[in-house]
Amino acid sequence: MRALEDRILLDGRVLDGDILQVGGFINQQIDTSFTVEMAKEVFSLFSDTSVTKVLTIEASGIAFGFAVAIQFGVPLVFAKKSRTSNVDGAVLFAQVHSYTHGNDYKATISAEYISPDDNVLIVDDFLANGEALRGLIKIVKDAGASVVGAAIEIEKGFQGGGDRLRSEGIRVESLAVIESMSESGITFRR
Amino acid sequence: MRALEDRILLDGRVLDGDILQVGGFINQQIDTSFTVEMAKEVFSLFSDTSVTKVLTIEASGIAFGFAVAIQFGVPLVFAKKSRTSNVDGAVLFAQVHSYTHGNDYKATISAEYISPDDNVLIVDDFLANGEALRGLIKIVKDAGASVVGAAIEIEKGFQGGGDRLRSEGIRVESLAVIESMSESGITFRR
Repeated sequence: MRALEDRILLDGRVLDGDILQVGGFINQQIDTSFTVEMAKEVFSLFSDTSVTKVLTIEASGIAFGFAVAIQFGVPLVFAKKSRTSNVDGAVLFAQVHSYTHGNDYKATISAEYISPDDNVLIVDDFLANGEALRGLIKIVKDAGASVVGAAIEIEKGFQGGGDRLRSEGIRVESLAVIESMSESGITFRR
Repeated sequence: MRALEDRILLDGRVLDGDILQVGGFINQQIDTSFTVEMAKEVFSLFSDTSVTKVLTIEASGIAFGFAVAIQFGVPLVFAKKSRTSNVDGAVLFAQVHSYTHGNDYKATISAEYISPDDNVLIVDDFLANGEALRGLIKIVKDAGASVVGAAIEIEKGFQGGGDRLRSEGIRVESLAVIESMSESGITFRR
């Protein structure tokens, strides 16, 4: 999506440790109308599918996930990063390693929110090593539901997580794929 | 908002420890079209103000905050619950005690996302003791910006946080205010 690539070049900042700071429009501060435009693009990309539910993970995937779910007219479900007192009953879960934070967490969802007849579109703001996405795919499969695919705002192509999932047959659509980045510049996959 | 009260009676569950479980439509699984209806009600309630930014806190406030921000045509900013590697530079923060989880956390926002000329509407899914809301108000004031008020989906009126803030002059509009609840029933403030 050219508008997203342009916005990343305009407002993104590359920080130490392969971090792309897009807090000005994607997380921390969210450009709501631009997010709706990106969600419309996702709807267009997956218009050949029958999505019944959008799934994301807290926290920064929620706004984009909500915008995408509105486009499809379906509920949004988000996984929590640890079991809290607000999640009762049977849970679906996956162990996820976060390279960003250097720790492991448990992604959990109440089992009642994904049923075997669901066609689930997984949505997130970033895809790097693909660990969070892999955890969400496991959760959908454990529920006996189908994974329609994954829609990502920004994929760090150079970290390989997206291509590994594609080679396993998962449909991954990223609105911008970064081939390389450093403090001197960012190049996108064409 | 009568539709929300009806929905709470239909789909909410009262659990031990004063917890109202509304995971089926407000958090974990979000009823997107109903959330948009609630956001329109908030827009109507605050139509006499000039909101320039909506502020919430991760994670469960983000979907409602996003829906409200779309109505006003302004950005959404969300506070994080701990400082991570994705937040660089000067930060605004507040120490918040969570009665739900029995711990303290630091709500943080990059200082660049709230400026002195902002009129900030604070949005959250729940208001109980008001500690999170109080933390967000402190952050807005520390930024030199104005607090337009707070818009809440469900206020636990019996915990008093909302009324304490109202008595201090904060405009708090809750779409449903619970006066009392137990496993045998829920009563709303009229």
